[in-house]
Amino acid sequence: MSKDSGFLCPVPILHHSNVQMAHGGGGRLMHDLIDSVFAQAFDNEWLAAHHDGAVGTPPPGRLAMTTDSYVVSPLFFRGGDIGRLAVCGTLNDLAMCGAMPYWLSAGFIIEEGFEIDTLRRIAHSMAETARHAGVPIVTGDTKVVDRGRGDGVYINTAGIGVITHDQVIGPGSVRPGDAIILSGDIGRHGIAVLSEREGLRFESPIESDCADLSPAVRSLMSAGIEIHCLRDLTRGGLGCALVEIAAGAGMSMTLDEVTIPVSQPVAAACEILGLDPLYIANEGRFITILPESETARALAALREDSNCSQAVVIGQVASGHAGLVTMTGRLGTGRVIDMPSGELLPRIC
Amino acid sequence: MSKDSGFLCPVPILHHSNVQMAHGGGGRLMHDLIDSVFAQAFDNEWLAAHHDGAVGTPPPGRLAMTTDSYVVSPLFFRGGDIGRLAVCGTLNDLAMCGAMPYWLSAGFIIEEGFEIDTLRRIAHSMAETARHAGVPIVTGDTKVVDRGRGDGVYINTAGIGVITHDQVIGPGSVRPGDAIILSGDIGRHGIAVLSEREGLRFESPIESDCADLSPAVRSLMSAGIEIHCLRDLTRGGLGCALVEIAAGAGMSMTLDEVTIPVSQPVAAACEILGLDPLYIANEGRFITILPESETARALAALREDSNCSQAVVIGQVASGHAGLVTMTGRLGTGRVIDMPSGELLPRIC
Repeated sequence: MSKDSGFLCPVPILHHSNVQMAHGGGGRLMHDLIDSVFAQAFDNEWLAAHHDGAVGTPPPGRLAMTTDSYVVSPLFFRGGDIGRLAVCGTLNDLAMCGAMPYWLSAGFIIEEGFEIDTLRRIAHSMAETARHAGVPIVTGDTKVVDRGRGDGVYINTAGIGVITHDQVIGPGSVRPGDAIILSGDIGRHGIAVLSEREGLRFESPIESDCADLSPAVRSLMSAGIEIHCLRDLTRGGLGCALVEIAAGAGMSMTLDEVTIPVSQPVAAACEILGLDPLYIANEGRFITILPESETARALAALREDSNCSQAVVIGQVASGHAGLVTMTGRLGTGRVIDMPSGELLPRIC
Repeated sequence: MSKDSGFLCPVPILHHSNVQMAHGGGGRLMHDLIDSVFAQAFDNEWLAAHHDGAVGTPPPGRLAMTTDSYVVSPLFFRGGDIGRLAVCGTLNDLAMCGAMPYWLSAGFIIEEGFEIDTLRRIAHSMAETARHAGVPIVTGDTKVVDRGRGDGVYINTAGIGVITHDQVIGPGSVRPGDAIILSGDIGRHGIAVLSEREGLRFESPIESDCADLSPAVRSLMSAGIEIHCLRDLTRGGLGCALVEIAAGAGMSMTLDEVTIPVSQPVAAACEILGLDPLYIANEGRFITILPESETARALAALREDSNCSQAVVIGQVASGHAGLVTMTGRLGTGRVIDMPSGELLPRIC
């Protein structure tokens, strides 16, 4: 909220129920929108300072920074909404650096005519998710674009986090013999958004897995477990994430299909739709790559978090054949996991 | 660039000249786009690490964070483009906190069908502006939305900066008797974008003032000048900025119109279009509020920067009448500077 008129309008009253172009113009209407929707929902000392940015002193440690924009369609789906997604997604990218989140920023690109009540619902969902994670949304921005030049609202979040350990987490730290742990069942987020969008009805409704992964990572860190790589399984799903890491590490991986948890409704939906759960996006699932000797302790630490109760070893890293990921199927046959060219499900995040 | 396949595609070749939905899907096409457009332009060690975020250790000091989204239309205008704007805007918000920029992030929301060559031009403009400022773009994200759900490209940047001094800069530090310094002539950015959009031709073409303000602020800081408040004059222009600060500080301000520099072409354009230069957006202009005794040294420090050679005292702060800004006009008559309800020029940033 780079500009703010709280002092001028102690109790801002919005005279419009839909966003107008003038709400993005820098005048009184923009300040009213910011005050009555965003500042009210995110309420914290940094926004109250009415300045161009937030200022503070993070705890000692290395710093991590990440960003993502969110364009999910539709804005609301079973198990989440664009606001919850925008907060969890950036918290998760920080967690995947081994960082504990410190601050978030939020940038809104709103289409002219968008309902202010819906915007308020989204802001409250963001605020609730951020509050639950203990992370303030300290700075933000609002832009309005003409009707037909947006799709309701797009949200960008950026985040900074603090790394208090000395581990170097990333593909470059992966070693031959490392185990690959998956934190839970895959494919729910993509299928939940798709079914909302296409009006598909399944016998058991599928809920997005959208969740903050930082508690699970904090749990691994607190147990003092040696971690080589962490990666959340968003666009491209488990399949793309593993191929990328294998390529980045210059190694190969072998997976065991029967160990990979896929819920019955997701498996059924994928079969009907001709989709492979390996490539479906998740928003609350990640893999941990670590020395084989650490797996028992890591599984125990992960399973303390209710979101990771199904955590399981799904494969191993081997030397050579950079980027080759193979999977032994249910019938014992092998298959190469390739990176698809595109993605069958657009705008799932 | 949260995901990257550099290892798989050492020389990525784009087989498309326009962005497809699949370029946002997390697969090979997205990695090709990121590698061949963004990673190539922004080229640095953090992006090369192919991880979900950047990790590093900023120099000691307080930390500032800010964000802005950019939806300017058209994407290119005299004196700048959306890329240069997206970098300068966030550098400037950091500078207004008295922070020296450390890292930037960049999030792109691209409309299906957008020309990849144009995207490359924009990325290069961002890279050049960031390099000139000595600030790396360390992390990013790419999303693609359906045709008719965007407008070419929208860009979000977030930035973090380090504050190495102890001054508290903001409306709360403003004191009665303080002087108000304006860094240069006003109104060029808004009029430049408007004339590009509406196809207006003026006798002397008007160029945007879009510029990085951190060198000017660094110059003030290095001279050890006591600063109470800094504010860049973006949406809402000089008028809104002063009303906001006066309200936030709980004080009033008096301005002297004849001291405020407005170039002849901007003054003429404003007269023809019925606009008031006081409310036109700038992207390379700011005000400094500071003790009257510091003005001579501050003006000398500012004028060292070629972008601030016209820096001038335009008014004073007085106690009482919170939020009241008055201006003595060319003919000696007074006028109250109010905050307009909306903005006559949408999408100028």
